[in-house]
Amino acid sequence: MAVVSLSEARMRMHELLLDVRVPAEYARIIEDHFLGNEVLGKSSHGIIRFPYVLEYVRKEGAGGAMKEVASTQQSRTFDANRLPGVVAITLAAEDLVAHLDASPESALAAVSVTNYHVISGVLGRYAYQLAAAGYIGIAMASSWAIDAPPGGREPMIGTNPIAVAVPSTNAPVVVDVTTAATAYGKVLLSKANGEEIAEGIVIDADGNPSRDPDDADNGAMLGLGDHKGFGLGLAVELLTGVLVGGDIASREHNDRRDGAMLLALRPQAFGSDNYLERVSALCNLIVESEARPGSDGPRLPGEKYALLRSPSEWPETFEVPDSVWEAFVNV
Amino acid sequence: MAVVSLSEARMRMHELLLDVRVPAEYARIIEDHFLGNEVLGKSSHGIIRFPYVLEYVRKEGAGGAMKEVASTQQSRTFDANRLPGVVAITLAAEDLVAHLDASPESALAAVSVTNYHVISGVLGRYAYQLAAAGYIGIAMASSWAIDAPPGGREPMIGTNPIAVAVPSTNAPVVVDVTTAATAYGKVLLSKANGEEIAEGIVIDADGNPSRDPDDADNGAMLGLGDHKGFGLGLAVELLTGVLVGGDIASREHNDRRDGAMLLALRPQAFGSDNYLERVSALCNLIVESEARPGSDGPRLPGEKYALLRSPSEWPETFEVPDSVWEAFVNV
Repeated sequence: MAVVSLSEARMRMHELLLDVRVPAEYARIIEDHFLGNEVLGKSSHGIIRFPYVLEYVRKEGAGGAMKEVASTQQSRTFDANRLPGVVAITLAAEDLVAHLDASPESALAAVSVTNYHVISGVLGRYAYQLAAAGYIGIAMASSWAIDAPPGGREPMIGTNPIAVAVPSTNAPVVVDVTTAATAYGKVLLSKANGEEIAEGIVIDADGNPSRDPDDADNGAMLGLGDHKGFGLGLAVELLTGVLVGGDIASREHNDRRDGAMLLALRPQAFGSDNYLERVSALCNLIVESEARPGSDGPRLPGEKYALLRSPSEWPETFEVPDSVWEAFVNV
Repeated sequence: MAVVSLSEARMRMHELLLDVRVPAEYARIIEDHFLGNEVLGKSSHGIIRFPYVLEYVRKEGAGGAMKEVASTQQSRTFDANRLPGVVAITLAAEDLVAHLDASPESALAAVSVTNYHVISGVLGRYAYQLAAAGYIGIAMASSWAIDAPPGGREPMIGTNPIAVAVPSTNAPVVVDVTTAATAYGKVLLSKANGEEIAEGIVIDADGNPSRDPDDADNGAMLGLGDHKGFGLGLAVELLTGVLVGGDIASREHNDRRDGAMLLALRPQAFGSDNYLERVSALCNLIVESEARPGSDGPRLPGEKYALLRSPSEWPETFEVPDSVWEAFVNV
């Protein structure tokens, strides 16, 4: 493993992004997203993805502006003009927060976005962005077709994550789950390590159960619990890509149109004057409850997000595999 | 099995409900809900639940009116005054549809409701109600604490279902999943049949893996995939019971306060002028895709909801176990 200085990694990212004419404020969003994911321990969405984003910026550019293609008092749809996904969705979340901050009578609002380029990043980050501003945040995004329906063997929808974050008296509570049996990145990791994967995650090209990680691409992935996860993933697909004009059932990984949907609710509008306290009360009961034998005790989802509250509190260093660091410095 | 005439069952329900002073329009909602569930083949939420509802109506009454406790231009929160859950949530969905129908400039709206008495019914029915009116419908509800957190062994949240329904050029697409490893009703069914259940559904009171269906009550249930399903279930809890003043982590089954949240989005507001066609296009690709070996082919979630379109097309009869029919006629 290589021990990486966060500020050094940030500086290098910044230079590389400015070299390919990414505006400084967009560069900062990209750096914050991928380095913040390292802080969260989500190394599958950390600097390992940066060379990939840079390649796309070189190809498609990253200097455009979001274009509003539909709007109402409570909703906006943006065409991201092939901005990087993490820039487009972060800007969409900023827009949503600005709208609700400026409209105290507004109980809820939504922003959808399409035509960004890969990748959409960690959805929990956008939900967190909304919750850190005091709102209940919901974030969803579509991706290339890789999940097969129950009874079927052809990839039809993406691994389509759902993230929900809510404010509390402490850090926001952040839930971020893929609707597939596992994250695609984890399958890639097993593949890199030459390991088999558990049953119930992929099927081979003939539709038979498989433990070969290559079958995520050669066959298909399954939904979490097969029909339940596929159902939720389909719901995400219908609320994102299908709603905003994204590709339908396309297996193309790269030159594609996905969709993201952000929803934010103002908790006070629903009659609860002590929502933050009630959220914390439930969370405290959970973390203080009895452990299962052999476990470290009950865990809340997204506990590490508390680390993101202030960039000045981010750790100075993080570790990545040597190969990831080499790819990063040689990009 | 007993072959039951739908109109006979409806008549008997109607008389019994009127006997306990349920207003005729509320009685009709209860009949439609439980008989419609039989039409859908969801017999775990069919007339088997009716005696239970009747018992609660006898105890708590069912003649009240929903009371608005908070409202904005786009949201309303109702105290259901101990109405039966299926009445309260059906009325909430009607309110949401009426609001959006009357506000064509409105892109989305939400209604939350609390203080209804058990049971909340099949959540997909309310999402369907919104989709049948042309909106993207999302429905969630909390229930008594039965799911343990990852690493923990104490019940902290309900089995908390999520339902999403969207309109298409054919019948609405309806997704309705519990966030627990399986529905509580299915565990009860295994118990009634003297069967063990699969691993990963419940743990015993000491937190050890168990296949004994009694441990759903004596120990705890697990989330779907443990941490993923618990995360989603927690998100539902925070958007429903915790938001609207429901009970927190209470294991009391009956005299309790749950919460339900309904969200509806107007697809046209998001810039898609052919949403229904795009939904149908994806659904058609799915049902026409290749089958897995030994399966009947790919299945869409909620296919049976097409049967609900017109009550005049409901089948004349349905089958229930003799014991269910006897309980129903002897209530």
